[in-house]
Amino acid sequence: MEPILLNGQWTASQNPSGSVHAFNPSTKEAITEREYPISSWDDLQAMLDAGKDAADQLAQLEPDRIATFLETYADELGKDIEQLVQIANTETGLPVEPRLKNVELPRTTNQLRQAAVAARDGSWRNAVIDTAAGIRSIHNPLGGPVAVFGPNNFPFAFNGVAGGDFAAAIGAGNPVIAKAHPGHPHTSTLLAKAAMRAVEATGMPKATVQMFYKTKPELGLKLAAHPTLKAVGFTGGRGGGTRLKEAADRVGTPIYLEMSSSNPVFILRGALEDRAEEIAAELHGSCALGAGQFCTKPGLAIVERCPESASFLTALSEHAKSSVPGTLLTPASPDEIDSTVTQLIGEGAELLAGGRIAGTEGFAYENTVLTTTAAQFLRESETMQTEAFGSVCLVVVAEDLQEAVSVASVLEGNLTGTIYSAQDGRDDSGYNAVEKVLRTKVGRLLNDKMPTGVAVSPAMNHGGPFPATGHPLFTSVGIPASLIRFTALHSYDNVRSHRLPSALQDKNPTGSMLRSIDAKWTTEDVS
Amino acid sequence: MEPILLNGQWTASQNPSGSVHAFNPSTKEAITEREYPISSWDDLQAMLDAGKDAADQLAQLEPDRIATFLETYADELGKDIEQLVQIANTETGLPVEPRLKNVELPRTTNQLRQAAVAARDGSWRNAVIDTAAGIRSIHNPLGGPVAVFGPNNFPFAFNGVAGGDFAAAIGAGNPVIAKAHPGHPHTSTLLAKAAMRAVEATGMPKATVQMFYKTKPELGLKLAAHPTLKAVGFTGGRGGGTRLKEAADRVGTPIYLEMSSSNPVFILRGALEDRAEEIAAELHGSCALGAGQFCTKPGLAIVERCPESASFLTALSEHAKSSVPGTLLTPASPDEIDSTVTQLIGEGAELLAGGRIAGTEGFAYENTVLTTTAAQFLRESETMQTEAFGSVCLVVVAEDLQEAVSVASVLEGNLTGTIYSAQDGRDDSGYNAVEKVLRTKVGRLLNDKMPTGVAVSPAMNHGGPFPATGHPLFTSVGIPASLIRFTALHSYDNVRSHRLPSALQDKNPTGSMLRSIDAKWTTEDVS
Repeated sequence: MEPILLNGQWTASQNPSGSVHAFNPSTKEAITEREYPISSWDDLQAMLDAGKDAADQLAQLEPDRIATFLETYADELGKDIEQLVQIANTETGLPVEPRLKNVELPRTTNQLRQAAVAARDGSWRNAVIDTAAGIRSIHNPLGGPVAVFGPNNFPFAFNGVAGGDFAAAIGAGNPVIAKAHPGHPHTSTLLAKAAMRAVEATGMPKATVQMFYKTKPELGLKLAAHPTLKAVGFTGGRGGGTRLKEAADRVGTPIYLEMSSSNPVFILRGALEDRAEEIAAELHGSCALGAGQFCTKPGLAIVERCPESASFLTALSEHAKSSVPGTLLTPASPDEIDSTVTQLIGEGAELLAGGRIAGTEGFAYENTVLTTTAAQFLRESETMQTEAFGSVCLVVVAEDLQEAVSVASVLEGNLTGTIYSAQDGRDDSGYNAVEKVLRTKVGRLLNDKMPTGVAVSPAMNHGGPFPATGHPLFTSVGIPASLIRFTALHSYDNVRSHRLPSALQDKNPTGSMLRSIDAKWTTEDVS
Repeated sequence: MEPILLNGQWTASQNPSGSVHAFNPSTKEAITEREYPISSWDDLQAMLDAGKDAADQLAQLEPDRIATFLETYADELGKDIEQLVQIANTETGLPVEPRLKNVELPRTTNQLRQAAVAARDGSWRNAVIDTAAGIRSIHNPLGGPVAVFGPNNFPFAFNGVAGGDFAAAIGAGNPVIAKAHPGHPHTSTLLAKAAMRAVEATGMPKATVQMFYKTKPELGLKLAAHPTLKAVGFTGGRGGGTRLKEAADRVGTPIYLEMSSSNPVFILRGALEDRAEEIAAELHGSCALGAGQFCTKPGLAIVERCPESASFLTALSEHAKSSVPGTLLTPASPDEIDSTVTQLIGEGAELLAGGRIAGTEGFAYENTVLTTTAAQFLRESETMQTEAFGSVCLVVVAEDLQEAVSVASVLEGNLTGTIYSAQDGRDDSGYNAVEKVLRTKVGRLLNDKMPTGVAVSPAMNHGGPFPATGHPLFTSVGIPASLIRFTALHSYDNVRSHRLPSALQDKNPTGSMLRSIDAKWTTEDVS
């Protein structure tokens, strides 16, 4: 049985309730060389205790120390590239190139480095100094560990021990208890080992980074609700996310979730007239990316019925039929997708392409296109929005613009919403009608571009209203905005000056940190 | 039966389930001239529908329009001062001067004006422009009405139709459905009438401000969970707040609550040696302010046992005994306080002063001082932290500093935490030990000063960890920080430039709005 990472040591799990192993999705073979423990509460309690101590120690460190740790960790990952991408490929079936080696791993180290820059800069901590009132405030670390639950679909960039939530929580000054996804445990071990080399090289508290692989669902809920745990970051499915949210909400622990999204794409008549074939190719490409296992996969397209809508559907279906199905992440994936597709057909959707578990060597499902009318979609709008986590797209045909707007009005909260319109602006009034309804239902609004690219930009919002996430104010991608989630607002009222944190003392701690002094944003000292 | 304010009209309540009237707490007399409806769902549904329309209209307005409305509202309140303070005094028993006329009403108009400045400025909306990635983001209004539930203890400054949450929600661009507190309905009517004059004078959407007085608890929960409602602001007790939070959380609607707080004051040995009598007087004054009905009332004091701790307790008790009890807000208040005091005594607290319903003309309870040992407090720490919403203070005597730190470690989340220490710094090591534990449990940390003053400062945090509020990241007082709560983060990815909101277009919309352009905060245009 593999050890867990507890308080700086790779330690045997105490009283595990069982074990799990990974699969090679490309061959469907179990990877039985390594068994990973299903942690009991003993492991989690020990991590909480150690994490609390680490939080207290981190609170005494200047942000530069944390920044140096994050950069050192990124450097360490740069030394392991070949092994990391090889193991991640074995455990996830994701292609070594370009995906893992040229896109996701560089993105991951880039995020760690951006979080380091943010930690050092500190302007995002919103330091406010009111000299007349004698009050100063800032966003501080939370005072305890943060649990980060990573998803199956990004073994590096969203990994609990290396990804966006990890970088944000650490960058904000909190220790992390990572739950590795059991779909890529060895990958996670390698990441955690690199993290520990960085912890040691930079003299960080030993429990700054801890990791376990799996626990029983009820213990995950107990962890989320434990008073020592100060926040949760979660990326995964809606069922588990909703249960964790409920557990954390009940005790008022901040929880930041990314749960599900159908990422609707509205293709207005003008766009279809201009470039139906081109958009069909784009939609297929976006849908099939990563075998359709992106949080921002466009699972829903809405088109206005017109001569070009028929050719659009034909082109989309042809692309689906002629493409080799991608490899899915887990043994359960094909059945799960099939179940959702069957459900959609049961609600009246018509199958145009795919619709079957693929007969490939690995876990796979045929690229699938379904269609339905807006009237039928509106009748069964809740079921019709069920996310199929694979290359499945439901195209809703609206009789006119008004029906398309009606579809927009019943959409749940989504990460993204996209509108394609005529290039010459002749359907801008249609754009406005759809946008007005769509804008407040999505975190990121796109024009003329599929939503699967999620740039690590300070302007990125990888968030959106429930049930896409738990709160419409926050993004899990985009630095420094993602860091603020893992802080608390702290005021200091009449606190003696030598007791203030350095960021709130009269002297600007870096010379470049933006602070509001008497209602003016400045990098100056308090005069 | 008095009408409700629905979509710009004072309208008869539809199918009310009953009616309520206010009391004059100073005379215990019912104010029966005006009966206020207990609204059925008909009223609330109509408000939601109208509020949604208003939200759509508000989204099209430039922030300057909203700012002008808020300023006009403040001006209108300035015309009604005498009537407002007279009626508020009759309904709440709070003194006309200085409290209502010289403190709370000016504070309320000041908040409205500060929210106007923030709305016009917009820098707090965190506009981020990444020209290389083609992504721009900003905090936008929520796309639907916000419900604001006001408390009983501040008829102006926290009123659902005029107070801090109102100013923040409107300043951020959202219409408000206010639930007036039925303890001061006529006051709320006068405020709402002034708001409507401002709505009309500035041509705002009619349903920008709506108000009802009371509804059944289950309909309050239904309102909080309704998909048209986009956020909730609540100030009140823990029971109602917790139930509303659960309803809103279940559907992922942001809810911002201020629920309860014992506001612990740690008085270290050095401070007692230096100035025990003085601190006893300060503590009594803070406790008795507003008859102890402040959210930040120090209900808990922790002292180290020393020669001066005994004289401190004596002085505090003498102040309590020699002061006339203040008038409480509601007929139920004396019994509620008595029940909590009885409970504390039942858990082993010793009564030093007060402890009985006062024999005064109005609703009142004697100024009450209780004491217990740290050991006993630690045994019954949950009950011992029950908030008595009146002039009641429990003084916990710790045998030494370590016991005081142990008390800090079992505290729930609080709005404030205060430490008094020696003026010459000789007990700074004790300060550090307490502060380390206390800091992450409170929103505002104070030195040498009682917590009841809540300045409307941009550095104020009137917030704190659960159960003081619902989330440690937010403040309900302090502008512009309080506005951000009533927004959603919106990215625009590849959106054509003429479709961007003005705040994200290349040209700086005001010439002075701070925006991040390619990672540099600036008031310049995009070049």
